[in-house]
Amino acid sequence: MKLVTFVADGREAVGRLDDDETTVRDLTPVVDGASLLDLVADWDVQGPRIAAAADLPAVDRPHLRAPFPTPRRDLFAVGKNYREHVAEFGRSGYDTPQRSEDLPDKPIVFSKATTAVTGPYDDVEAHAGITAELDYEAELAVIIGRGGRGITRDDAMAHVWGYTIVDDVTARDVQRDHKQWLLGKSLDTHAPMGPWAVTADEVADLAALEVSSTVNGEPRQKAPVADLIFDVPELIRVISAGITLLPGDVIATGTPAGVGIGFDPPRFLRPGDVVECAITGLGALRNTIR
Amino acid sequence: MKLVTFVADGREAVGRLDDDETTVRDLTPVVDGASLLDLVADWDVQGPRIAAAADLPAVDRPHLRAPFPTPRRDLFAVGKNYREHVAEFGRSGYDTPQRSEDLPDKPIVFSKATTAVTGPYDDVEAHAGITAELDYEAELAVIIGRGGRGITRDDAMAHVWGYTIVDDVTARDVQRDHKQWLLGKSLDTHAPMGPWAVTADEVADLAALEVSSTVNGEPRQKAPVADLIFDVPELIRVISAGITLLPGDVIATGTPAGVGIGFDPPRFLRPGDVVECAITGLGALRNTIR
Repeated sequence: MKLVTFVADGREAVGRLDDDETTVRDLTPVVDGASLLDLVADWDVQGPRIAAAADLPAVDRPHLRAPFPTPRRDLFAVGKNYREHVAEFGRSGYDTPQRSEDLPDKPIVFSKATTAVTGPYDDVEAHAGITAELDYEAELAVIIGRGGRGITRDDAMAHVWGYTIVDDVTARDVQRDHKQWLLGKSLDTHAPMGPWAVTADEVADLAALEVSSTVNGEPRQKAPVADLIFDVPELIRVISAGITLLPGDVIATGTPAGVGIGFDPPRFLRPGDVVECAITGLGALRNTIR
Repeated sequence: MKLVTFVADGREAVGRLDDDETTVRDLTPVVDGASLLDLVADWDVQGPRIAAAADLPAVDRPHLRAPFPTPRRDLFAVGKNYREHVAEFGRSGYDTPQRSEDLPDKPIVFSKATTAVTGPYDDVEAHAGITAELDYEAELAVIIGRGGRGITRDDAMAHVWGYTIVDDVTARDVQRDHKQWLLGKSLDTHAPMGPWAVTADEVADLAALEVSSTVNGEPRQKAPVADLIFDVPELIRVISAGITLLPGDVIATGTPAGVGIGFDPPRFLRPGDVVECAITGLGALRNTIR
């Protein structure tokens, strides 16, 4: 199933998307005001009810929000997790003072603050007073269903509720100047998410999904999930080794080569630019820089 | 006022601490089941009611939890924010590959996952399978009251609801090996918090507060808040420049010199060790490593 969080007539609710990927069915009669976060945490009960629901009304002009507009905690995110992106990041000189093109031998995990989350078609703020080096990063995001700690590689996929797309928007100068990445990754609206949350059963071959982005229609990034250095089971194993994962946790898995900083000279985003981030079968984000 | 979150008879509630710093008064009749997070977010209304409440029952054998046992999002935390700690960190060689003793020219901000939070007297897990280099970091933590973005230095203190103590427990090997610090700072139980939350009006001279720690009674850290490289108004200004701060947000402001990694050879924590972190007027955390 594909599920959305939407606003219509000033009311926020959870909806189910039809196969046409356009018609949103209002689940309010079935879920009684629960958020998607609530539903994911109670999926054994709610999933079958939502799947079986029939005769749901179509929503007139839904405005899609992020599937989880207010996550229960910061998003987990992974840096330098595609080989060619590691190389472009190293060449850029931004990873001072190490400036390393070596592949990481352990996942580089950081977080994006909850307040960075914004909708799939909402504007992304330029934050002109804070950054002059705004960049995009299309990423597959994993949504945790059953929580846990010490999850093995073999068990990891059983903890995945589904998938969505995150644009891990980054202020490169802030990322660099503050050494740790939290601030440069967390400016308000710098985590567009969606457009929908897709249950894991809809993804037959995760590795075959293609992650891509365009800026003003010009292709920038394109790589299969198979190119991940640390794959989804490994990320879940490493993060959950000492940190209890919770239902609804989001893990943005890293971005392929082709970001703005990878060009020489760098091609940073400007107000008016339109960034699209797409993944096979998961839809596309489309955000304008303002 | 000093407020606590406690469990007694299997029930969790918010309490007010008497001047004896021992007797906890149950606020349930006044706040009707609200959490401390709820109360901070509605402080203009709730603060005067709580202050005026009389004839509150004393709680028999309260078990103190963290003031915010389940924060609304990850804690903000600051690295290398005391001069002498920057020097010891640099000399330790752990900050590879930069190994810099230079003072940071901008705050180094990272996060600690919500699930790391534990109570002021609860055990801290050794996580022996994940880390062999467990360390302590006593820190002043600022609790945000009124949220906002673009907060100026001049306005910053008006956004502070109060203060508490956080032991920013750190797995040094994990911190180093994963480059970004989130995992090494976020293992379960690695953010003891409390023992109480103290409203800002009780702190007459913030700079004069002394942050200290002991391990098994042996003094390790001791420095006044005045030694912060980036003071509280500056941290609030920098973080809120592009990130909307929310009521109940916690900012752990950094730790003084004297952590385990500062010794040669390093003195890491072992099971059975008792770590105490104290701040003048704010009480003390006391946690045993298990």
